[in-house]
Amino acid sequence: MCQLLGMNCNTPTDICFSFEGFRSRGGLTDVHTDGWGIAFFEGRGARTFLDPHPSSQSPVADLVRQYPIRSRNVIAHIRKATQGPVGLENTHPFQRELWGSYWIFAHNGNLEDFAPPLDGSFIPVGDTDSERAFCWLLQNLSENFSAMPRADILHQTLQELTREIAPHGEFNYLLSQGEALFAHCSTRLCYIVRQAPFSVAHLKDQDVAVDFSEVTTPNDRVAVIATAPLTDNETWTPIEPGCLMMFLDGAPAQPV
Amino acid sequence: MCQLLGMNCNTPTDICFSFEGFRSRGGLTDVHTDGWGIAFFEGRGARTFLDPHPSSQSPVADLVRQYPIRSRNVIAHIRKATQGPVGLENTHPFQRELWGSYWIFAHNGNLEDFAPPLDGSFIPVGDTDSERAFCWLLQNLSENFSAMPRADILHQTLQELTREIAPHGEFNYLLSQGEALFAHCSTRLCYIVRQAPFSVAHLKDQDVAVDFSEVTTPNDRVAVIATAPLTDNETWTPIEPGCLMMFLDGAPAQPV
Repeated sequence: MCQLLGMNCNTPTDICFSFEGFRSRGGLTDVHTDGWGIAFFEGRGARTFLDPHPSSQSPVADLVRQYPIRSRNVIAHIRKATQGPVGLENTHPFQRELWGSYWIFAHNGNLEDFAPPLDGSFIPVGDTDSERAFCWLLQNLSENFSAMPRADILHQTLQELTREIAPHGEFNYLLSQGEALFAHCSTRLCYIVRQAPFSVAHLKDQDVAVDFSEVTTPNDRVAVIATAPLTDNETWTPIEPGCLMMFLDGAPAQPV
Repeated sequence: MCQLLGMNCNTPTDICFSFEGFRSRGGLTDVHTDGWGIAFFEGRGARTFLDPHPSSQSPVADLVRQYPIRSRNVIAHIRKATQGPVGLENTHPFQRELWGSYWIFAHNGNLEDFAPPLDGSFIPVGDTDSERAFCWLLQNLSENFSAMPRADILHQTLQELTREIAPHGEFNYLLSQGEALFAHCSTRLCYIVRQAPFSVAHLKDQDVAVDFSEVTTPNDRVAVIATAPLTDNETWTPIEPGCLMMFLDGAPAQPV
């Protein structure tokens, strides 16, 4: 199984601390050695760093750890291959453009017998069930709307579409179009919201701590979503299986 | 004006040497300081490194120079902004997926009054004339064919489409779908084919040389395409203005 990491903030924030713990799971403290990737939205733009090599040994991961890219929405993934061989074309997150916005998607799980008809508007490049699910989601969004709908309407539509895929297996995913971050829990996903008063957080996977009160302003708010808690001195909230959460400006939006 | 760099090979090759000279033009030996990017195809996959900061000072460029990614098709771009502010969403190369393949595009020049109707299948995320031209090219390819056509047919179709855009201004571009690399010269673009017997090449922008005979096998063939020659001891061939060349397996394909 793979590991997911997402961040949604009300102000551009770097993910260096969380990424430090997360990347350890790619070959050092855990077994997810079949590639990794991370995507950052910056304004309307997005940049994705992909590496088919284990994240704990990746020079690209060294760069990401040392180069504080400030972003309001980040999605990262460490892969343990289930469907599709190890290779760049099967490395998450995947990226497409719809309605003049980039969309980023990463999946943890395994979908069986999920081979819906695709009309050609979004076609997988690689062999994974994950990219197929992503293409199908975008195809259906594109059929439903001719431009980006309001966030709550998007949330509701994604809930309906997700319910059609979920019975095919494990379908934990993170999806963002640069504003909202959607997090679907099928089996395992949790989150934390950090806001004032900020305190010290200590990583679970490495003996590294950060005092967020020193690196934030009182108005900052950051939601971090991960397969398993990244820190051992904070309370992470499990997302209920079957639930698709939408994070906006660093906080969960009200359920629709 | 921007600078373009492309590479097309018959065997996966790293671009570290050419990139070393090319990146100097982003703020060190030349004035292209408004961001840069490079895209590598690896099998069906592609990874793009983008940085809105000058390439001569970019930590991402340090990584690319030191991390020999072996690829059969590479497209790089250093930006001097003409249309659209400096920002990640306006940083080349641009990437889209069509027919289950990634397509990468970078443009040097300036198109005026190029605002064709777009049907929604490919919409620019940023503000550049370049991304608009890319979207329009893909939209038309998608209308003409339902799957990837043969390379010569693709070449011919791109020639026809390019002729419709070119009158709008300067339109030097590089385009690849992972197999062929298309290079259109509107004002300035040249290339070199390196093959056995390999010899020593010396960069124009830095005092760096490489003996290709030490790092190649006799069957290797590599075409490098650039806005201006990157070496000062080799003969580069200018591409004729108005000509769209197709490179396959490290050599120009016969004109159609």
